[in-house]
Amino acid sequence: MADPRFFANAGPFALGELARRCGAEIGPGGDAGKRITDVAPLDTAGSEHISFLDNRKYVETFVASRAGACIVNAAMAAKAPAGMAILIAKDPYRAYAQVARAFYPSPPPEPGISERAQVAAEASLGEGCRVDAGAVIAAGAEIGRRCHVGPNATIGAGVVIGDDCSIGASASVSHALIGDRVILLPGARIGQDGFGFAMSPEGHLKVPQLGRVVIGDDVEIGANSTIDRGAGPDTVIGPGTKIDNLVQIGHNVQIGRGCVIVSQAGISGSTRLDDFVALGGQAGLTGHLKIGAGARIAAQAGVMRDVEAGATVVGAPAVSSAEFFRQVAALGRLARKKERE
Amino acid sequence: MADPRFFANAGPFALGELARRCGAEIGPGGDAGKRITDVAPLDTAGSEHISFLDNRKYVETFVASRAGACIVNAAMAAKAPAGMAILIAKDPYRAYAQVARAFYPSPPPEPGISERAQVAAEASLGEGCRVDAGAVIAAGAEIGRRCHVGPNATIGAGVVIGDDCSIGASASVSHALIGDRVILLPGARIGQDGFGFAMSPEGHLKVPQLGRVVIGDDVEIGANSTIDRGAGPDTVIGPGTKIDNLVQIGHNVQIGRGCVIVSQAGISGSTRLDDFVALGGQAGLTGHLKIGAGARIAAQAGVMRDVEAGATVVGAPAVSSAEFFRQVAALGRLARKKERE
Amino acid sequence: MADPRFFANAGPFALGELARRCGAEIGPGGDAGKRITDVAPLDTAGSEHISFLDNRKYVETFVASRAGACIVNAAMAAKAPAGMAILIAKDPYRAYAQVARAFYPSPPPEPGISERAQVAAEASLGEGCRVDAGAVIAAGAEIGRRCHVGPNATIGAGVVIGDDCSIGASASVSHALIGDRVILLPGARIGQDGFGFAMSPEGHLKVPQLGRVVIGDDVEIGANSTIDRGAGPDTVIGPGTKIDNLVQIGHNVQIGRGCVIVSQAGISGSTRLDDFVALGGQAGLTGHLKIGAGARIAAQAGVMRDVEAGATVVGAPAVSSAEFFRQVAALGRLARKKERE
Repeated sequence: MADPRFFANAGPFALGELARRCGAEIGPGGDAGKRITDVAPLDTAGSEHISFLDNRKYVETFVASRAGACIVNAAMAAKAPAGMAILIAKDPYRAYAQVARAFYPSPPPEPGISERAQVAAEASLGEGCRVDAGAVIAAGAEIGRRCHVGPNATIGAGVVIGDDCSIGASASVSHALIGDRVILLPGARIGQDGFGFAMSPEGHLKVPQLGRVVIGDDVEIGANSTIDRGAGPDTVIGPGTKIDNLVQIGHNVQIGRGCVIVSQAGISGSTRLDDFVALGGQAGLTGHLKIGAGARIAAQAGVMRDVEAGATVVGAPAVSSAEFFRQVAALGRLARKKERE
Repeated sequence: MADPRFFANAGPFALGELARRCGAEIGPGGDAGKRITDVAPLDTAGSEHISFLDNRKYVETFVASRAGACIVNAAMAAKAPAGMAILIAKDPYRAYAQVARAFYPSPPPEPGISERAQVAAEASLGEGCRVDAGAVIAAGAEIGRRCHVGPNATIGAGVVIGDDCSIGASASVSHALIGDRVILLPGARIGQDGFGFAMSPEGHLKVPQLGRVVIGDDVEIGANSTIDRGAGPDTVIGPGTKIDNLVQIGHNVQIGRGCVIVSQAGISGSTRLDDFVALGGQAGLTGHLKIGAGARIAAQAGVMRDVEAGATVVGAPAVSSAEFFRQVAALGRLARKKERE
Repeated sequence: MADPRFFANAGPFALGELARRCGAEIGPGGDAGKRITDVAPLDTAGSEHISFLDNRKYVETFVASRAGACIVNAAMAAKAPAGMAILIAKDPYRAYAQVARAFYPSPPPEPGISERAQVAAEASLGEGCRVDAGAVIAAGAEIGRRCHVGPNATIGAGVVIGDDCSIGASASVSHALIGDRVILLPGARIGQDGFGFAMSPEGHLKVPQLGRVVIGDDVEIGANSTIDRGAGPDTVIGPGTKIDNLVQIGHNVQIGRGCVIVSQAGISGSTRLDDFVALGGQAGLTGHLKIGAGARIAAQAGVMRDVEAGATVVGAPAVSSAEFFRQVAALGRLARKKERE
């Protein structure tokens, strides 16, 4: 179903092979040899496609689906329509991800350095790298193996990048140390000066920004997001953290492992997020805060105080989600009451 | 009045010719042969300039203006100062746009491919295209006639672009099918991976993003805006929709015809906007919503529920505009009352 | 302490020399000849480092610090631990900035034009400029002395740039007149079309944007920020104004001297800021407003009315900060009260 102009399908696969790859169990009566040619959504899938059900909202679509196979949890398996093979998984969405990665893997880039790229003689590139036209890699940069530096991307002097990274089109990186398997989407800006000025009516004096950006393994950073380098300490993005598009990370921010930061959120200088924090779209955090592990910050929240581990906060100024919805309800009642009076 | 370093004036024009081009009527006593050399704002226009009045706030400026001609609606015509010729139009701003386009047309680009551009042998370019230095066009891309690919822009493999499009400096496009007369401003990011992960404490697993971005005719997309490709279905931007700078459009979003999306707004995955929806600056929509035709979402609104066709919603969480202003008033009264107690 | 891969240290300096450079006084018993090799944060500084104390929160860290020297105000000097030399300054952060600039100056760029840059024959470049690989400078552009045009940056036709400017990687500039010592960080977008359309169900008609962007001396503009050119009047950024990342400035906006605009803020068309206005992160201003000198707009504020000089406004819709906190308190009480009933 994926447009072959853009995606190369590595299938077909036997159902049993897909079950093995995603750690699922074939449901009663399923044929491990059944040929599956592609993934597809429940409503458009055909008899050689595999789909998934992850949301009760779509049970009707599931029951009516013509998919040849579907990944579901144990509770849903019995509702499968006749002729549909079932793969039973605890987390059907994760299993789907693995199946989709089987059909559409991300192979290492085809190695080669474009004649139109500029790679400084003093830069080092590991084996198997691809550097596209217009890319500029400055002196002293060290890039690992099998990295892809996209068209018109810029890697500044002294930057260190690990193995199997992808630097998107027109992205720029300076003053940074980057781990393995890091993905920067197009236009991401890593390592530029933080916003540091000694303010005064005589003129705001620029303060040298003397830190770096340190990015752990398996991080993804979205298109046109901006991560400033530290002012003295480093700005740190922990391993496995995923950052969406148009996100701003200020200088000296420290983000732990496995955090998820949705589009257009912003984190002011020196704030620290512990592991597995989730930050909703357009949320904003002021500077010098501590956000505990596993905290959840709602979309558009405005956080001005520390947040405890595991807490969920909503609104601006942000409060607990229970308090927020009480406030919303109370204000709604008040507005109606005043109207009746 | 426009700086000739940046803008080439195609005038002068006779007043009658301008009236014809914008569908306006010359007011009583107006001379169709009057020579008009340029457009200009009411307060700085001189005797050979044409201006417009579209806002009651500026009636005094109009009455004092020395503009040789002015586009107004019928009600305002009688207030024109002596010596000013009048063009009467139902929609003076639209008529002004047409007159300004007469003076400053957008001709097709001067054809030619820079020696410093990289165009893959397997890409196709229609007649009359201009490709600037540093642009990179990958294999299998198909670009229509009279398109302008700006400096350092990147067009990915297999991308299809219609006729008379303009791709701004350092913009990037991948996995996309684009109609005619589409304008991408500098730094726009089209077609990169959506933000799709199967979340887990063991590590967030990247889900292949197998859809495309499909953009209709006459769409404009602002500087540094980001439009992710679909996860399986496509991300769709309907014909005539105008998107401002720094806007985020998530994967699988479907936007109808003629929508207007102001700067820094964000739309989460799988939300659908029907035709002619207006979205104010910094507004945010969560995922999987339906926004009916003609709905108006205020600036900074936070929308978490479906919005009916024609409705206006304000605030976060967004409510009807009447309800929002009742809430604001009630809260103001409450704060004052508590203070007095 | 700064990573020598990225930063070149111009030290060491004698303490007396540093005192002279930042206008501070050496405290009692201090040795003007003491050798200082670097700046460092209080908690990691050693005996040859200089640090600063600017925030009461860090007094304990100061008392325990092993820094060889520290910049403080007069009130704090007596608390210095034994062996620490003291520099006394009215504004310790500003003095620190000057000391850090002594260690890490910003010398003019190493002159030279990359063979991989494209500079039009009809463009002019002052002496001492550096133009990196992939940069594209169009005909008629006039660039002053000692400017650095970074890799893959684009300077459009007719643009005028003063002396000692820095244009970041992949930034783009068109239709603009730029002063001296201006810094554009990577991906900044200056001078593209404003968002101007004559809206109509028949189709939104693009209105030619015939103004420029005029940027004063000593302005800094953050990564991926967007500044649209005027629609007829110019968009103006006054001298000494500092703009953070991902900020949107609409067409015809006029910003005075010394304003500070934090990340992800947005200013709609034709709004005017007088001198020294401060705008918090993610704040939004609607169009056609006047914001008086020295006004402070809180983070995430939504401003829909003019703001008086010197006022502080908070919230959306924005009110005085006193009123905002009264409202927050009143709403909190109301929510608790309703709960108890």
